Amino acid sequence: MTWLDEVKWTAEGLVPAIAQDHATGQVLMMAWMSRESLALSLEEGRAIYWSRSRKALWRKGEESGHVQKLVEVRLDCDADVLLLRVEQLGGIACHTGRQSCFYRVYADGQWKTVDPVIKDSQDIYNGQRS
Amino acid sequence: MTWLDEVKWTAEGLVPAIAQDHATGQVLMMAWMSRESLALSLEEGRAIYWSRSRKALWRKGEESGHVQKLVEVRLDCDADVLLLRVEQLGGIACHTGRQSCFYRVYADGQWKTVDPVIKDSQDIYNGQRS
Repeated sequence: MTWLDEVKWTAEGLVPAIAQDHATGQVLMMAWMSRESLALSLEEGRAIYWSRSRKALWRKGEESGHVQKLVEVRLDCDADVLLLRVEQLGGIACHTGRQSCFYRVYADGQWKTVDPVIKDSQDIYNGQRS
Repeated sequence: MTWLDEVKWTAEGLVPAIAQDHATGQVLMMAWMSRESLALSLEEGRAIYWSRSRKALWRKGEESGHVQKLVEVRLDCDADVLLLRVEQLGGIACHTGRQSCFYRVYADGQWKTVDPVIKDSQDIYNGQRS
């Protein structure tokens, strides 16, 4: 059994991957990885997800330059979730131009946006999200 | 539309929830929440997950005492992942007796256990995992 077989893939052959800034500890995003994308990520030393909407490999940062360099990849006790500790190039993980995708906080029955846009998303992309 | 409707639930009516220690930034675990469990979590100020294996509410810490007190609940840009910033009572989130469920690191084609057991799981539970 290889390390890839130890991962408990969903029926769709995916596993959730949490990306965390290795220096600050900030949780940046969660996306999904396929067997191929996980293997490629470790081979290339950068986060390569599986885009469920586009049904294609998603080389994080390919359009935006906001590449996530892998520092460490961890597997949880149930072997069904990954934790990527990354160096976030450009300091922005979210397609909205924020550091983290988790920029809304629950308060008084609402999700309130609390984190600033670092860079306008129009300036990040010429084309599609990445 | 209420704040609960803004969450994009899976076909099974669930959403992944990442628990992070609010003081240290350590990512502790990922589990799933139902609409009911999220509402109850916010009402009671503690993490209450949905156990997919038991198909029941999972009041984290009910058996172990390792309750996760909610400090903040965040929603991501796609509204399909939650981030719980918590105070981890007992300093142990994992049923194996470790601080975090992510205690295995990829290295040289293997998942290597790198984090110590803080408390023997036999001493944590008399019965089932929680």
